[in-house]
Amino acid sequence: MVGVGILGYGTVGSGVYEVLNVNKDIIKRKTGEEIEVKKVLDLRSFPGEDIESILTHNFEDILNDESINIVAEVMGGVEPAFTYSRLAIEKGKSVVTSNKALVAEKGTELLKLAEKYNVNYFFEASCGGTIPIIRSLNTSLTSDDVQKIEGILNGTTNFILTKMAEEGRDFGEVLKEAQKLGYAEADPTADVEGHDACRKIAILSSVAFGATVDYKDIHTEGITKITREDIQYANKLNCVIKLIAESEKTPSGIAARVAPCLIKRDHPLAAVNNAYNAIFVKGNMSGETMYYGSGAGKLPTAAAVVSDIIDIVKRKGVYEPIDWDVNKNLPVLSPEKSAVKAFIRIGFENKTEAEKAVCDMFGDVKFTVIDGLNNEFAFITNQETEKSVYDKINKLKTASAVKEVFNVIHVEE
Amino acid sequence: MVGVGILGYGTVGSGVYEVLNVNKDIIKRKTGEEIEVKKVLDLRSFPGEDIESILTHNFEDILNDESINIVAEVMGGVEPAFTYSRLAIEKGKSVVTSNKALVAEKGTELLKLAEKYNVNYFFEASCGGTIPIIRSLNTSLTSDDVQKIEGILNGTTNFILTKMAEEGRDFGEVLKEAQKLGYAEADPTADVEGHDACRKIAILSSVAFGATVDYKDIHTEGITKITREDIQYANKLNCVIKLIAESEKTPSGIAARVAPCLIKRDHPLAAVNNAYNAIFVKGNMSGETMYYGSGAGKLPTAAAVVSDIIDIVKRKGVYEPIDWDVNKNLPVLSPEKSAVKAFIRIGFENKTEAEKAVCDMFGDVKFTVIDGLNNEFAFITNQETEKSVYDKINKLKTASAVKEVFNVIHVEE
Repeated sequence: MVGVGILGYGTVGSGVYEVLNVNKDIIKRKTGEEIEVKKVLDLRSFPGEDIESILTHNFEDILNDESINIVAEVMGGVEPAFTYSRLAIEKGKSVVTSNKALVAEKGTELLKLAEKYNVNYFFEASCGGTIPIIRSLNTSLTSDDVQKIEGILNGTTNFILTKMAEEGRDFGEVLKEAQKLGYAEADPTADVEGHDACRKIAILSSVAFGATVDYKDIHTEGITKITREDIQYANKLNCVIKLIAESEKTPSGIAARVAPCLIKRDHPLAAVNNAYNAIFVKGNMSGETMYYGSGAGKLPTAAAVVSDIIDIVKRKGVYEPIDWDVNKNLPVLSPEKSAVKAFIRIGFENKTEAEKAVCDMFGDVKFTVIDGLNNEFAFITNQETEKSVYDKINKLKTASAVKEVFNVIHVEE
Repeated sequence: MVGVGILGYGTVGSGVYEVLNVNKDIIKRKTGEEIEVKKVLDLRSFPGEDIESILTHNFEDILNDESINIVAEVMGGVEPAFTYSRLAIEKGKSVVTSNKALVAEKGTELLKLAEKYNVNYFFEASCGGTIPIIRSLNTSLTSDDVQKIEGILNGTTNFILTKMAEEGRDFGEVLKEAQKLGYAEADPTADVEGHDACRKIAILSSVAFGATVDYKDIHTEGITKITREDIQYANKLNCVIKLIAESEKTPSGIAARVAPCLIKRDHPLAAVNNAYNAIFVKGNMSGETMYYGSGAGKLPTAAAVVSDIIDIVKRKGVYEPIDWDVNKNLPVLSPEKSAVKAFIRIGFENKTEAEKAVCDMFGDVKFTVIDGLNNEFAFITNQETEKSVYDKINKLKTASAVKEVFNVIHVEE
């Protein structure tokens, strides 16, 4: 018998309870053990619900319950989740979590502590929802020198971009619908500004490259500036716009970024729609592999949390090192130095002169226009450093034929 | 120090040697152990090559070398691979393999033996090349009751279908090119007739559903009957044609099949091109997840073999059970009973009468014609049992307005 304590009975926490109960027999077959939720911590009461008899408002009840071997921390946020996780580990309990904010902020401390106390701190559900990307990096792509990892890591923004593309609607309008449907929170900042994806790519980079990539070093742009006009151009260029989080090992450091990008329609990430996530990994031996699944949602996220619990049970609690040197930070390159292609949309006073000004600056590029969008065009630059692109854009803005630079969006090759 | 013996120095075997050497330092960092290839078995000689000094023509040299803890069987075929694997396990050595023919034919025997001798028999590279699908099923999707698994499991046929679609060419022509490029073997039967994909879906089903699915029970069609005309229709219907291997748990047994299928262009499998493979898994908790990567090739396949070696090293040789009850066979449904939609292409004497004959038989369906393809049309049936579809087709053939049924292809929803 393995005892589990759940911290937080919100969406994910109630999902963990449900997964462990609905699939009880299957999990027993796979692990050879009965896994039982012994206590659930939440500030609220749930009168009449199944968990009423095991609900507590006091973390000490879980901490001091010796029948609880594994704690599922699914509260979100840094505190009190960090303190609770730390105390549980120090009591010799393994901790599993879906909390990307905590793993990105305090993961190294908790991993050090877990090693010291010979327990596991697992966080499969913190990135990519149900997608088994952490375990794949840690136990399957082990023969590889991972060189790049990129993907769609935020379900809310992917849902919004999908709807905008499918229905030709504006960001603000679709955001409101997403909030109504529960796909976006009342305060959507963490999602739509890219902060959530930034934390996830930092965690994935740390596991993929074997040392800490600090999320605070990663240049992050959200999707709030994407308009339906941008999407019309993308469509005409046979592309879609996705919020891409990427991280690549280069000789001078990690080139990492979160930003909306144009990607070709036949790229596998282009077919990743709604709240789905997908992650590409490029290794020096395996080449490109991709992992796809629900990036959010009660049961998919809970399934990933429970897979961590099962892994710990199957390993009989033996400490399993993760290839993440928590004492080493990898330097992240300034975004200015990384080479990019950019989609640039311009409003002009005079088309021929504006085209000439663009070509003088950016060399030979191809112009795209959209029926119904008057006095504007777009083009895609050749590959150059981000700094050079923005320097040229600033010069372009001073050209008399150019009225306005509407938007600049990365283009993913 | 962990010693490895490699059985077979062909494409995969030489890849295993290369991966272990090129990524030696990284692998040491991840495992804490030096892994060294002690001996390589091959009938050929390789004068002047690195492995010359460790090459043997005699399996006994590997069997009796006590410094060899793990044997990589990458010979292919059932014999002598089976005998060598059996003997190695009985000597207390773990065995890893890329050999789907052997795993499909004798996997249950070797797994039983491995349990008895407390060693591991791992076969990640046998399905989906470099894609970590076996380990994901066995260690990540553990909280799920897996209900369906389907995918593109054969690189050769996917390469041929991709070329046919991209270049509007015929099967025979593209096959010859694939043979020249090394994507198809001189005798391409195992690939183009679907036998290879059949063995792989049998192995994946056994791991996903927890008991043996016998490959001999799985209805298998190849791609030899697919023409460029079929692809023209698929294109017009906004679909692509892929060789799909699928397996689903139903109350009366496993519904499994390997067959070419029309799938919608926006389905994630539609973007899987060339020699890439991809596998969809549907679980009752995690929903749909997908795994994508190189389905063949020297280094990608070898990377999967080496990931098994690393897993064994990290587990310090402790026996790791796989959720595959080798003493139990799951019944496979007769394909006739499974519900399908079919794409049917018909040559007619008289269009109106042929359409009427079709509608009398299949109800209200939509007809598609292609410019330049005269006296023929195609339609997609509603969902019905395969038996019913073929019964109706047989009746249709007797209608005077119908000249010929050119092709019948599954449609994947």
